[in-house]
Amino acid sequence: MGDLEAASVGSLDHQSSVEIIGSNLSHDEPRRAIEVAPPPPKALMHRLLYNTKEMLCPDDPFHKFKNQTTRRKCYLGLKHLMPILDWAPGYSLSYLKSDLISGMTIASLAIPQGIGFARLAKLPPIVGLYSSFLPPLLYGIFGSSRDVAVGPGSILSILLGSLLREVVSPTESPETYLQLAFTATFFAGLFEALLGAFRFGFIVDFLSRAAVIGFISGVAIVVALQQLKGILGITNFTENADIVSVMRSVWAHPNMWNWRTAVIAASFLVFLLAAKEISKRHKKLFWVTAIAPLLSIIFTTLLVHATHDYEHIGIIGTLPKGLNPVSVTKIYFRGPYALKAMKIGLIAAMINVMETIAVGRTFAVKKDTKIDVNQELVALGLLNLSSSCFSCYMATGALSRSAVNVNAGCKTALSNIVMATVVMVILLALTPLFHYTPNVILSTIVFVAVIGLIDLEGAYFTWKVDKLDFLACLGAFIGVVFISINTGLLIAIGISVGKILLQISRPHTAIMGLIPSTNIYQDMQHYTNATQIPGILIIRIDSPICFTNGNYIKERILRWVGESEDNASHYKGWILKYLVLDLTSVMSVDTTGIHELTDVLTILDKRGLQLVFAGPGIDALEKLIKANFVEKLGQKWFFSTVFEAVDYCSSLMKAQKESNDD
Amino acid sequence: MGDLEAASVGSLDHQSSVEIIGSNLSHDEPRRAIEVAPPPPKALMHRLLYNTKEMLCPDDPFHKFKNQTTRRKCYLGLKHLMPILDWAPGYSLSYLKSDLISGMTIASLAIPQGIGFARLAKLPPIVGLYSSFLPPLLYGIFGSSRDVAVGPGSILSILLGSLLREVVSPTESPETYLQLAFTATFFAGLFEALLGAFRFGFIVDFLSRAAVIGFISGVAIVVALQQLKGILGITNFTENADIVSVMRSVWAHPNMWNWRTAVIAASFLVFLLAAKEISKRHKKLFWVTAIAPLLSIIFTTLLVHATHDYEHIGIIGTLPKGLNPVSVTKIYFRGPYALKAMKIGLIAAMINVMETIAVGRTFAVKKDTKIDVNQELVALGLLNLSSSCFSCYMATGALSRSAVNVNAGCKTALSNIVMATVVMVILLALTPLFHYTPNVILSTIVFVAVIGLIDLEGAYFTWKVDKLDFLACLGAFIGVVFISINTGLLIAIGISVGKILLQISRPHTAIMGLIPSTNIYQDMQHYTNATQIPGILIIRIDSPICFTNGNYIKERILRWVGESEDNASHYKGWILKYLVLDLTSVMSVDTTGIHELTDVLTILDKRGLQLVFAGPGIDALEKLIKANFVEKLGQKWFFSTVFEAVDYCSSLMKAQKESNDD
Repeated sequence: MGDLEAASVGSLDHQSSVEIIGSNLSHDEPRRAIEVAPPPPKALMHRLLYNTKEMLCPDDPFHKFKNQTTRRKCYLGLKHLMPILDWAPGYSLSYLKSDLISGMTIASLAIPQGIGFARLAKLPPIVGLYSSFLPPLLYGIFGSSRDVAVGPGSILSILLGSLLREVVSPTESPETYLQLAFTATFFAGLFEALLGAFRFGFIVDFLSRAAVIGFISGVAIVVALQQLKGILGITNFTENADIVSVMRSVWAHPNMWNWRTAVIAASFLVFLLAAKEISKRHKKLFWVTAIAPLLSIIFTTLLVHATHDYEHIGIIGTLPKGLNPVSVTKIYFRGPYALKAMKIGLIAAMINVMETIAVGRTFAVKKDTKIDVNQELVALGLLNLSSSCFSCYMATGALSRSAVNVNAGCKTALSNIVMATVVMVILLALTPLFHYTPNVILSTIVFVAVIGLIDLEGAYFTWKVDKLDFLACLGAFIGVVFISINTGLLIAIGISVGKILLQISRPHTAIMGLIPSTNIYQDMQHYTNATQIPGILIIRIDSPICFTNGNYIKERILRWVGESEDNASHYKGWILKYLVLDLTSVMSVDTTGIHELTDVLTILDKRGLQLVFAGPGIDALEKLIKANFVEKLGQKWFFSTVFEAVDYCSSLMKAQKESNDD
Repeated sequence: MGDLEAASVGSLDHQSSVEIIGSNLSHDEPRRAIEVAPPPPKALMHRLLYNTKEMLCPDDPFHKFKNQTTRRKCYLGLKHLMPILDWAPGYSLSYLKSDLISGMTIASLAIPQGIGFARLAKLPPIVGLYSSFLPPLLYGIFGSSRDVAVGPGSILSILLGSLLREVVSPTESPETYLQLAFTATFFAGLFEALLGAFRFGFIVDFLSRAAVIGFISGVAIVVALQQLKGILGITNFTENADIVSVMRSVWAHPNMWNWRTAVIAASFLVFLLAAKEISKRHKKLFWVTAIAPLLSIIFTTLLVHATHDYEHIGIIGTLPKGLNPVSVTKIYFRGPYALKAMKIGLIAAMINVMETIAVGRTFAVKKDTKIDVNQELVALGLLNLSSSCFSCYMATGALSRSAVNVNAGCKTALSNIVMATVVMVILLALTPLFHYTPNVILSTIVFVAVIGLIDLEGAYFTWKVDKLDFLACLGAFIGVVFISINTGLLIAIGISVGKILLQISRPHTAIMGLIPSTNIYQDMQHYTNATQIPGILIIRIDSPICFTNGNYIKERILRWVGESEDNASHYKGWILKYLVLDLTSVMSVDTTGIHELTDVLTILDKRGLQLVFAGPGIDALEKLIKANFVEKLGQKWFFSTVFEAVDYCSSLMKAQKESNDD
């Protein structure tokens, strides 16, 4: 291997690829435009560090710590942990108006949604208000995004409800159910904080986007249909979430439908949808969609209060006055409930992480800023951990509410603090006003909120672009809608894992041909005018060769060689002699990969075929040298490009044919 | 998109890449050596079928069914299921001698190993003999390999023993333990058959070879050390398998060591190792290593019988006479034991599949024949399923015994039938002869058998070639040796999964530079003389862009663009203007990938950078067209090679500079 390692690339500078053609064939050693460069030596620790960095910190979060004094590093670290230190000192009063307006706007949206989403999770409405106070306050301190508005989310609420109900019934033992909810929130926070701290947020990348679209759209439809209970005032409603059970409940006794609630729901549905449409058309009227739910609540509450018709229309009832009570003593830290809540927390954390990262990335792209999703996870984890000790359930950075926040012109995380303050005032003084709020208006608000999550556009885009992806989307959707939310989630994960397996174990390989009148080799399946060189088979491999795909690559190469030999026997003089493997994109090979390549070499040798390597990547080359593969194959069969490899093989065949003819 | 779709590649045949340089810049449309070919249309079903075939049948098992009549297809199918129909009708008598010799040879090896390995699994010795009779007989009918010798295996036995002991103690309730073993065997067979039938054998590829080397070597050392119990005649021996507990048991009372057994063990250890060495040096004396264990058993049994010293030396005791009793009634088909046995069966099946596939592939490469591992799995599954109903525990095609079979010159699977016949004769008439066989000789035989599994060479190769792989190897080894076999297995799986995650979520990307005096672009990290073109950054992506890596690729590209802009600001006139993405090996893009690429486009647009695509693969191009990405970016920014993309960008920059100078 001395030659390859010592090869000086510079010495061959002045040979162009054109000169090579017709080069002197009496030399056994092929002349080349460029030599295969020897791999530069790299230390084990260096590589380990590099791999770890690429794995966990591809966004280079330590960039700003470079070349700083220790004191400054500590200060930067503290600012990193508590971004309020970053923006508060330089806070300009000109921001205040924007932050106040956006804070008030999201507060007016958060109050009805908080109460409504808590009902989705089968929790007391007041818990929804508690969760709209403490989490945004904490996010104002720990959150790094200026756009995200924190509070209860619809998907997370319905998921939490459906998971908790499997353990204990919310109607039979409401106190245990509530305690379980706090415990699950606690553990979800813990998982989120740990995932973020160890920079493992990237695992959400393993959930395919298409499956998530299907899952969320399915949940939205299920939740929307469940609101028919409140809208039509149905009393005996199924506990199941699938579409069949829900529709059966709805149509069981159409004569029992409550016309009062139906009329209220219908009118406010129109009102809310119109408000949404207005905001969509005129960006400046963003506050219309935000204020509409609160207006609906105020109006219907007054209506019920005035008509005294709360016997026919269900109302929220008494909401306790005062700030969040301490609930740390209610959390199960041991026992079977702790274990079950931990499992629920883990699932909920995954969904929460997924939502948060999606929201964070959306705004980062829109504003071309960088968001450190792992830091966001830590912030979210910390706030769920601590707020679960004060009667809050899971909070998240919901996309729709954050969009309202952005449209309202928020400048800093102060808008979250403003929102928390507004909710605090309500908790301290105004909760009695919600006594007569009818359930039907909450159902209507939730209905409008969730149908916005149905991503028809995304599903259509998926269908148009990638039919396999659409199958994943459809599978998750059908699972949620027709079976259960958990089944849908399982299907989404299963399909994602299946796609990963397919991707990793069956990498793409292609037969390459020469484009006429050029020296360019391209995939023959794509460039149909590319032609094969007689006697030479060129196969490109588009992935590292490793234990997950080594055997497949071997089988695939041998199958192509076999087919090529079959075809070759039809033509005279078209005997396959050389197999050129284009390894340009094969950056690395592991021990399994080397074993499989050695197998290929052994089998080709037995069949009288010569293996030729073109342009293996830096790490792959290093390992092939160390494993004595280069020695075994012969250094002269390594080329830096396919062109040169084919050129050399052709000239050898030509020379042999001439000597045969003589 | 009409242009690209309608582009006729042939019409551009006569433009070479040389002509392009200095082409007329007044045309906005770049002239190209070759156009980007439009992707040929493909139907959804076609692609689904193709993907499924590549996933499950990369070895094309239906090749031989092509172009056959239906009747012939049925016949071929039956032959496929029962390969005995393939070789038996054409069986030549000249094979008979070879098969008889090899059958007798493996039988003489199988008898002591059968008894010894059953003791590893804490099962009665007679079960080991039963399992050396029925499984090879069935394999003779269903097995497709001519080389594999079937029977109990050491790794599988110790694993089964260690898993079963966690459920029930073999000393306290031996009957339940035995029933559990049959049940686990039954389910393992079921899993194997199912995996094979659905052609899912490839999942063993997800266990990294390096981790398996570490795991097996660790198990071999643990098993070898446990044999010190029998060798030194220690009575109070630990049930744990880790090296610390075992060595503590050994050195607890050195004065209690039994010198008689120690002397016998030492002498036969020398004898067995010498026999092994002789066979290794002289291939013709293959029978020496095969016959040595049986000779040792005969000799020591006679010795014990003659000296009547069986009070000081433990003996096997009475073995029942007769063929395998029916045990189907002993299998738990329901209840908690069934579930536990199912879990054990699943783990054991995975290990068995791994071993079988490794053995199958080894011989396939050696003989350049094709082995259908999935068919082997079905055969192995069927024989474990049925033999578990007749008092057999798990059988496998062990590598060492198969190697003896090959060396003995076996021609067909008849050698397995011969072996089964020999064991049958022993079961019917000769079991009383084993009454006085001392335990110590069985321990010695197992000791010699397992130390052959320690793969120092493989570990050294791994260390030399791939340090990360070696870490996997070491981790599994340490897990087995110092903690437990199950922990080692978990570590091996954990490390393998970790490597898969790394591979799939962090694909390789490289900055490309031009090799001086050529038109070849190469990875600048590898070819250190390659130089960057001022104003143009070329990044190659070596993997499909999909949901597992899309975000990483985006981050990586943007990081490189940022660094490049930082560097560029140091040089005058070196302002980054073009980002060329070399997508030659990007065969496919999913919806997430397109979203991420769109994000990159949006961000680059904001920074005033032009994105240029070079040579996206066929599927990727099709999806980019469907997703309107090609339209968004502009068709003229798509090139088939990096050379042409850079050439066009350079000429644009030159033209602009000239107009600025004027």
